Amino acid sequence: MSAALLEGKLIAESLKAKIKLEVEALKSKYGKTPKLVAIQVGDNASSSVYVKAQKKAAEAVGIVYELKIISDTISQPGAESMVKEMNKDGSVTAIILQLPVPKGIDAKKLINLIAPSKDAESMTPENLGKIVSGQYRIGPCTAMAVMELLESAKVDLYGKEAVVVGHSEIAGKPLALMLLNKFATTTVCHIATAERGRLLEHVKRAEILIAAVGKAGIIKGDWIKDKAIVIDVGINKVGERIVGDVEFGAASQKASYITPVPGGVGPLTTTILMRNTLELFKAGLK
Amino acid sequence: MSAALLEGKLIAESLKAKIKLEVEALKSKYGKTPKLVAIQVGDNASSSVYVKAQKKAAEAVGIVYELKIISDTISQPGAESMVKEMNKDGSVTAIILQLPVPKGIDAKKLINLIAPSKDAESMTPENLGKIVSGQYRIGPCTAMAVMELLESAKVDLYGKEAVVVGHSEIAGKPLALMLLNKFATTTVCHIATAERGRLLEHVKRAEILIAAVGKAGIIKGDWIKDKAIVIDVGINKVGERIVGDVEFGAASQKASYITPVPGGVGPLTTTILMRNTLELFKAGLK
Repeated sequence: MSAALLEGKLIAESLKAKIKLEVEALKSKYGKTPKLVAIQVGDNASSSVYVKAQKKAAEAVGIVYELKIISDTISQPGAESMVKEMNKDGSVTAIILQLPVPKGIDAKKLINLIAPSKDAESMTPENLGKIVSGQYRIGPCTAMAVMELLESAKVDLYGKEAVVVGHSEIAGKPLALMLLNKFATTTVCHIATAERGRLLEHVKRAEILIAAVGKAGIIKGDWIKDKAIVIDVGINKVGERIVGDVEFGAASQKASYITPVPGGVGPLTTTILMRNTLELFKAGLK
Repeated sequence: MSAALLEGKLIAESLKAKIKLEVEALKSKYGKTPKLVAIQVGDNASSSVYVKAQKKAAEAVGIVYELKIISDTISQPGAESMVKEMNKDGSVTAIILQLPVPKGIDAKKLINLIAPSKDAESMTPENLGKIVSGQYRIGPCTAMAVMELLESAKVDLYGKEAVVVGHSEIAGKPLALMLLNKFATTTVCHIATAERGRLLEHVKRAEILIAAVGKAGIIKGDWIKDKAIVIDVGINKVGERIVGDVEFGAASQKASYITPVPGGVGPLTTTILMRNTLELFKAGLK
């Protein structure tokens, strides 16, 4: 058997079309357009890739996008002032801080300063906390992209055995909360699970497997349960190739659905950023 | 084998002694004392039990405690005004809303209105969200009480198989995050797990089992893994007796540690409420 592909690229296209329509409708109704400001501190090759993708996605859906690059010699208070200024600026409806930031700048402190009502990545404590209580329309982009992929495959999560590998703040932990909100029985594994030699047994019983570790091929293809749904969040560079956390070839022989890497979760995250921006804008109109 | 008892009562006593010393030290240094205001809407038998226990605990540690009872005929906006007034009142350092509230009053909306800096139960989105990122000194009382009990037994959670039964906002979900922050491999089960017939297998493999369902004896004693640590959050009335979610007699023959019900988690939660109140007060002094 060979798994069906869950291609984030395709889902992103249809999602962008929906966002575009809504942005246009709101513009004609209220005469206003969402504006996303990206703050980038210093120069960074990976940031440059991201901001390019963000700009393109914003243009595609009709969201105004502005990149503010500040010098990497800026002080922490200087960077904080920039965030505060954007919070106050009435024309700015959403803010994203590009990561990484240079050494000496405390990214977490900057993120926590972003007004929750403008927090496009949904990484402030207030927006993360709303996920605990299940009342949220925005969420961390990677976690939301995974949920979107599961929905696109019409996966009924109720009572399913879901296993998340990786317990990061942007993926594993919010994902666990989202899966619980949908009544999946949810297990989160991580480095300590692997060290204890227990990763294999958890992966083997997973009906829904989400890998969000960031280590090429750490999950072997023959560990995958028959007909499992496999979502691979990992984006790892091996020589010139980009691969996921799961051994794709062997895994796709066992899974019923699997995300390719690249082309799976990745392309969808930028679209979710646009959807978050739209949702924040709509909440601000009320 | 018979399990050692994890008695919240005893731990609460030593914790209260510590809190009392700190409250006194802060009073002599700053000339200020924390003040916890409990808002109770209408009359309710179970609320009355709680506020009595809160008053007693506050007195024991030197925290000023005030109970505000508002009529059950109050409107939602009226109740909201009360919360806002307490937020503004500089003499009030912490607020708790007694649950349940009468029909027609939206408890969640009221809780979300409490200033996070005065949120004694740590149930506002901002305070819940800080648990996701692992940066918290306060937390929901029940979840924090469980973590305190595990700490008292000097349980090293790193790489341990932890299973939480129940995924509520006050216990299961924040507990899962706290256990992940300590690097336990964490599974959360709930009603859908039971309906799928998978509860037994998860309980059987749990090295740390936390039951937070609220159904008398739903977890059978012979399901418990040898030498497991069993924390029973359930408080269920069966006739005139109070029992937990776990069959205590049979479970204590298998577990290495177990909480009695009553006398386990319950007595500790009110003490945690006092510790939260102290922590909020300290943060306000900075």
